[in-house]
Amino acid sequence: MAAIGVIGGTGQLGKAIARRLARAGHVVTIGSRSPESAVRAAADIAAAGGDSYAGAAAGKDVVIVTVPYAAQADALDQIRDHVGSAIVVDTTVPLVPPKVMRVQLPPAGSAALEARARLAQGTRLVSAFHDVAAHKLITEEAVDCDVLVFSDDVEARGVVIALAGDMGLRGLAGGALVNSVAAEALTSILIFMNKTYAADGAGIRFTGLTKAPPIP
Amino acid sequence: MAAIGVIGGTGQLGKAIARRLARAGHVVTIGSRSPESAVRAAADIAAAGGDSYAGAAAGKDVVIVTVPYAAQADALDQIRDHVGSAIVVDTTVPLVPPKVMRVQLPPAGSAALEARARLAQGTRLVSAFHDVAAHKLITEEAVDCDVLVFSDDVEARGVVIALAGDMGLRGLAGGALVNSVAAEALTSILIFMNKTYAADGAGIRFTGLTKAPPIP
Repeated sequence: MAAIGVIGGTGQLGKAIARRLARAGHVVTIGSRSPESAVRAAADIAAAGGDSYAGAAAGKDVVIVTVPYAAQADALDQIRDHVGSAIVVDTTVPLVPPKVMRVQLPPAGSAALEARARLAQGTRLVSAFHDVAAHKLITEEAVDCDVLVFSDDVEARGVVIALAGDMGLRGLAGGALVNSVAAEALTSILIFMNKTYAADGAGIRFTGLTKAPPIP
Repeated sequence: MAAIGVIGGTGQLGKAIARRLARAGHVVTIGSRSPESAVRAAADIAAAGGDSYAGAAAGKDVVIVTVPYAAQADALDQIRDHVGSAIVVDTTVPLVPPKVMRVQLPPAGSAALEARARLAQGTRLVSAFHDVAAHKLITEEAVDCDVLVFSDDVEARGVVIALAGDMGLRGLAGGALVNSVAAEALTSILIFMNKTYAADGAGIRFTGLTKAPPIP
């Protein structure tokens, strides 16, 4: 079992991830700009504890960043000098309200590449969990969506794929970190489909894979 | 039934699209840099005829461009003044060999946006068919992959979704033309998955859509 910090774990996506990981037996610390809120959220979901961003990032095996795009840079700045050799998982989708059904990619190409530029050189960065509907993940139910996992660090990618499995999700390797743009852009398409095809959280499944992990 | 030109219809993707559309009863003209090759390919698949790029683009309801990325600009230049009010469907995926498992987006952001810049203003441009494995589409079998269709012209998008249906594929609206980048980038992920998960043509399906066309 791993020591995991979830930065932004008081938000819907972070709380859902933290809860599923805590249930799977991981030692989860929720990180919030307000440590008091983090402690309350941790109690809600039976996580190990709550702390500041920096506190939740320090001394962990894995640090998962689950803040909105507008808060990504600040959150990464706050954890940058605390993550050490932990695997950092960035989940940021570069949505630009109000036009969230429209793909609007950042100047660096993707939120994952912005994260890489922001973190210390050598940080073990993985990008994942972009396309999962948070309001479904927070429930007990099965989530009908594959999780794409991107990294230039193949071992770190494998760790995050396994964590997805612990959460009841099928994680799939999507290649190098630069490929994260595909999953990030896809989020706007899923939001568009929610509206166009009356979906309560559209998702994606990959087909034709003969050697992939089974769908849980 | 529509009059359809398939530019690059001697290639695998174009031939597969032309064949399925011809079988559905559409009047399909194959366009090739070599009109003789186009005529031969048309005979192969029982299409109506073969012609040059310009000839295959003129006087059609729909013109589908299915050339490799490196040949896209030239093909669009050749059809630009002949498509008139036809719906132009660009299928180009901006793969940059040899690293085709790596997303490498063009300066304009996507192949679809490059196509828009290349065609005459007011051309009814749709982007689609990026993620379908051509070597599966050329067979008689069902293809387990949704087709994403992007356009700023909602009516044209609907026409192409219907054509996908005629081909035995589920077409789904993915929003504005600018969203095409998601499907284009996804192609590199599918190629990566073919290798990583031993797939003979990985595909995608969207889940949770309650009002989408049924899977054929």
